Order: sequence, then C-alpha cells, then structure tokens
Amino acid sequence: MSRIPRRPPIVGRYTLEEVALAARNSGMPLEALRHDVTPAGLHYSLIHFDIPHLEAQSWRLALGGLVERPLSLSLENLRGMRTRTLRVTLECAGNGRAQLSPRYPSIPWVEEGVSTAEWSGVPLRDVLGAAGLRPEAKDIVFHGADRGIERNVEHSFSRSLVPQDALREDLLLAWAMNGQPLPPQHGFPLRLVVPCWYGMASVKWLERIEAIDRPFDGVQQAHSYHFRKVAGERGVPCRLMRVNSLLAPPGVPDFYTRQRMLNAERVEIFGRAWSGEAPIARVELAVNGAWRDAELDAPAGGYAWRGWRAAWDAAPGEHELSCRATDAAGNVQPLEPPWDVTGFGNNAVQRVAVRVV
Amino acid sequence: MSRIPRRPPIVGRYTLEEVALAARNSGMPLEALRHDVTPAGLHYSLIHFDIPHLEAQSWRLALGGLVERPLSLSLENLRGMRTRTLRVTLECAGNGRAQLSPRYPSIPWVEEGVSTAEWSGVPLRDVLGAAGLRPEAKDIVFHGADRGIERNVEHSFSRSLVPQDALREDLLLAWAMNGQPLPPQHGFPLRLVVPCWYGMASVKWLERIEAIDRPFDGVQQAHSYHFRKVAGERGVPCRLMRVNSLLAPPGVPDFYTRQRMLNAERVEIFGRAWSGEAPIARVELAVNGAWRDAELDAPAGGYAWRGWRAAWDAAPGEHELSCRATDAAGNVQPLEPPWDVTGFGNNAVQRVAVRVV
Repeated sequence: MSRIPRRPPIVGRYTLEEVALAARNSGMPLEALRHDVTPAGLHYSLIHFDIPHLEAQSWRLALGGLVERPLSLSLENLRGMRTRTLRVTLECAGNGRAQLSPRYPSIPWVEEGVSTAEWSGVPLRDVLGAAGLRPEAKDIVFHGADRGIERNVEHSFSRSLVPQDALREDLLLAWAMNGQPLPPQHGFPLRLVVPCWYGMASVKWLERIEAIDRPFDGVQQAHSYHFRKVAGERGVPCRLMRVNSLLAPPGVPDFYTRQRMLNAERVEIFGRAWSGEAPIARVELAVNGAWRDAELDAPAGGYAWRGWRAAWDAAPGEHELSCRATDAAGNVQPLEPPWDVTGFGNNAVQRVAVRVV
Repeated sequence: MSRIPRRPPIVGRYTLEEVALAARNSGMPLEALRHDVTPAGLHYSLIHFDIPHLEAQSWRLALGGLVERPLSLSLENLRGMRTRTLRVTLECAGNGRAQLSPRYPSIPWVEEGVSTAEWSGVPLRDVLGAAGLRPEAKDIVFHGADRGIERNVEHSFSRSLVPQDALREDLLLAWAMNGQPLPPQHGFPLRLVVPCWYGMASVKWLERIEAIDRPFDGVQQAHSYHFRKVAGERGVPCRLMRVNSLLAPPGVPDFYTRQRMLNAERVEIFGRAWSGEAPIARVELAVNGAWRDAELDAPAGGYAWRGWRAAWDAAPGEHELSCRATDAAGNVQPLEPPWDVTGFGNNAVQRVAVRVV
C-alpha cells in the first residue's frame, strides 16, 4: 500500500486536495474568540483519516507492553476513577500553513486552527499507576482507532510521550468536552489531552496504550510533526505551542474577501493570546505598525488562552490591525512567518485589513 | 460602503479567499453519512458574514408590516406555542461549486455541503396566524441578525417567501437542533427551517419577520441565489433541492489526496439520497460506469435523506465508484455538472476513486 508518490511542494494558488481538506476539517471562525470556552461545534478539528465509528458499549482501552498489570478498561471503569476538568487551549501544529510558500501538501489552515475547551477525564498518571509502568519503559505509545495512509505508510494515528512527560499531573484521558460526551470528531469515546502541546499529542479515539523499551518510531512521531528548514533533515519534534495570539476582526465582513468595514468611532478590539512554553506576559496591538500595550484579562488557569482588549479610535481610511503576544519566558511572536518545510509552528502576527468609513 | 470591485470568475487552482471560506465554514465529512441524523458539530454550516452574538434573555422576534397585530415575541413565548419536531435534510445551493470552471468567487464546496438534523420549534403558520397576515401582504421577509457586504451592498442576511409557501404546515421557527438549543453557528436562538428548499431559505439568527406588499428586492433574494447560464441575466430563483446522492467512501484514505485503499473482499457501499422535489424512487451504484440498483432503506419522513446500500465484491485494481438517484417525479442526477455561472445546483454524480489491493 505504499505506491503513492511523494508530492512536491505547492507554489501559488491552492489545490483541490487542499480545498477538500479545508472543507471537511473545521476551523474556528475568528468571531468565536469572544468565547472563553469555544462551543463544541466551533472548536477546530483536524482529522488525518476518517472519523472512526466506535460504540461506547463494546469499546475498551487496552494498557499493555511494559506494565506490571495489563488492563482492559471500559468507559465505565474510567469514569469511576478520579475525575478532573481542565480548560485547555489546543492549536494545530500546522496552523498558519496556508501563509507559507512553497507549501507542504496538507491542510491549509490560514489562522483558525486553535480553540479552547473544558475537558473532563481521569488523569493519565492515575491510569498508568494502576497498570504499573515497569522501569525499563522508555516510551509510552497512544494508539488511535483512526487509520489511513500518510508518507506512503498505512497506519493508525499513534503518538508517544516519554514517561516523564506522560506522568505529569495535567494530562487527561478525557471522555467529556464542555460537559458533554465527546462529539464524534473530537475523539469519542476517549481521547488524550496534553495541555501546552500542539494538538497532535492529544490522540483521539484512543484504543490502546503501550509501554515500550525504545523510542517509538511510528510515522506521526518519528517523521511527521518535526520542524525542518530543509526537506529530508532529521528536524526537531513539534512539542509545546509557540507563543501566539489572534484578534477578532472588528466591524462587518465582505462575504468573499472577509475585508472588514467599520464606522469611524471608538471600538474595542479584543482577542486571545496563548503559549505552551510560559504564561502570557504581554499583548500589544498595532494599528498600521504602531505598537501599544493591550489590557490583559484575568488568567483562566495555566492551560488556557488569555483574553486581551484595547480601545481604538477608528478614523476613516484603510488600516491594518495586528496583535503580538510575549510570554513570561521572553518568547515573542515574529512579524514574518518562520520558515518550515512542512508548515509547522507559524506564529507570525496576524494582519487584519480594515476600511473605516 | 460599495467600493469593492466586482471580482472576475476564477479559473484553475483556488484562491486564498476560497481556502479561508472553506476553513471557517464546515462541511460534513462524508463518513458521517452513516448517521441518520448528523451530529450537530458535523452538520455543514455556511455563514455569509460573522456569527452574531445574541443573548437569549434580551432577544426578541418582531413581527410587523402588513399584519393585524404586530408582535414582539420572546424565546419563552415561542416555546410556549405548539411544538413540532421534523427531520430535515438541508443542502447548500452552492454545494459542488468547486467542481465547476470557471468558478464564481464564493465558498468552494466540493460535495460536503449537506446534512440532516432534527429541528424543533413552532410552525411558522401558527406565528403568522397569531399576527394575522393582511390580505395585501404579497411577500414575507425574514431578517437575520448577520450583517455584512455582498455584491457591493451592506445588508443583513434576509430572504422572503410568498404567503402560499410561508403558510405550509412544514415550516418551523426552530429553537432546537437534535434536542439541544441551537448552536451559535446554526442560528441561536431562533432560525427558520424550510424543508425541501436549499439552505439559503432557512434564515438563521432570525430577528424580524415583515409582511410587505411587493416582491422583496433584497440582495440575497433578488440577486444572489439564482440559476444563471450567463452573467447578468435575470435567472431563475434557487428553490427546491435538486435530486442528489452521496456515498461514504469505503476503505481507508490517504491523508492528503483522500484516495481510498481497501482490501479485495465483499464490502457494503452505503450512502444517502435526497430531493426537494419528490420522494427518492431509486438509487443506483456504478462501479467503473456499470450501473445497478442499490437497496433503499425505509423512508425517514418526507423531508430527510434516504439511506441506501449495495454489496460490492471488490477485486484488485483501480476503480471508480458513483451513485445516482432518481426521484418520483422522474428527476435523475446528471453525469456531468450542470453549468451555472454562480455555481448553484451542481447535483452531478459523485466519483470516488478507490484502489483495491
């Protein structure tokens, strides 16, 4: 099943394959930035293959490999364990890919591949504790039920975490999103949620957790999801979300161009900022390139985006609005997209064209 | 606010504007064809402007114009009236636009702009009856709260129905979708649902209903949503959904191309068929152009798609699967997309490439 040739990078306008991926996967409309917690149906979703059809009754989570006590857990078993609810911002590692050129053949997110949800589930460490990780376990693999072909290899979507990452208190095996059972596209009946990391770590439709004695070499772990400056290099694994921010475009849009129109008056510009590496320390708003500090809303826990707002006296004419976040580790968004062969980690400042009349 | 120039038709690959529209609007992933009722978060949505932010407490529906008793109704008032629940298939009039060339600058649906939901609400005729339509009312206008610019005109999304269409028993002012309050993107707190018609008639975020003494001349009624063979002609209004069908692609996909791979064995091909003009009478499946009848599931009411299935003994090689529906009025899907300047009403048969190994 490996006869699909490698595809060359794409230059210029977008292919039908890119459009079809954008149509079947959902981005978060930017006006939904007003919600602290994104309504479930507006949360972005990226689905590599097909949404698997799993029945809660017959579904089981298997824990095996290098564990003292292999387990097979029903949804009821998991719901009977300690439950935590965390508000977590997730962003697709490929968010912003559509702005790069040349472009890797994949989903062409413009900037809408980010959202926040309240996830409820059992801490992963509790479940790993019940199985008993053996000391020779070097990597823990999370196998999803979604199956297909990528990089010429047929596989189920699987990712791994080393024990020191997997045993953190803040990872969840989640069965609920915003207080409801997981919707099909968000991993029903159970998914991993890894706060602070790009979304690829939060494996959906989880079926099996396996402790192994070596680094996992699956396609989605060892090949995909690496930052690379040139094709073919080993690269650096995508992990924590880079500092980033978005604003909700003000005024009203033109349907096709999304160009914004607004009246000449004082308007409140608002948005969200996030970083997987450190808390948000500062957000700036620029009007036509002149930066000034925005006001930060109260933090919403350690894993969720932070709201911000700034008043703007909109004067007639054409303007460009941008926002730029800085985190407590000193990371700041770049003005131009950082180059990446596969289009990962584009955290360049958003640019919103507005016409004030 | 009308200084945006007319945009020329698009030939060849897709623009960033088209990609951004595909990313912010959701199509139904075709594997969701397995569901009789589409889970709310997987239901397609097309939002011309921004999702308005409406508060249920302060929201009111105004009924005015040529009525005996102008009304202002709260959500509670409406929920206190007679309630009906209908299972309704809705399809975007622009579904399939991405397959046409040249292409109108709009959302590039490939084929995923269709879904089915259970809508609950009060029959529109009951509400119109409470207000009392005056005999000189010639058209009834439904005004949404979503506002923006299209065809160079700033307007709220508004559509109309003549009294004889509006007074049918099967139109709903719906406040619930699949038993839950409407999600923001589907019209919270109240929307119109017009069974059998393309989706543009089912106005979301409804704020005002107005009876007038002449045909409504709003942008979305008098200019958009017309079938036209050449630009500039008057055209024919889009109304009932043309006969159409889809199959759920079998096997597993390649991530980027969605090319399907499956094993050589007997597989059940299944899908859905619908028509706004008459009940579905027949569905055929073609393998490499050889048509044969599929088996129809039981009908699911008068307004919802009809399931169908057919066994296929998949033999190794490259194949093309298609399905074709015929309705009781004798309408049958064409093999090639019917030409339309704006890309409306493309009900050509779907073609799914599969590789059997």
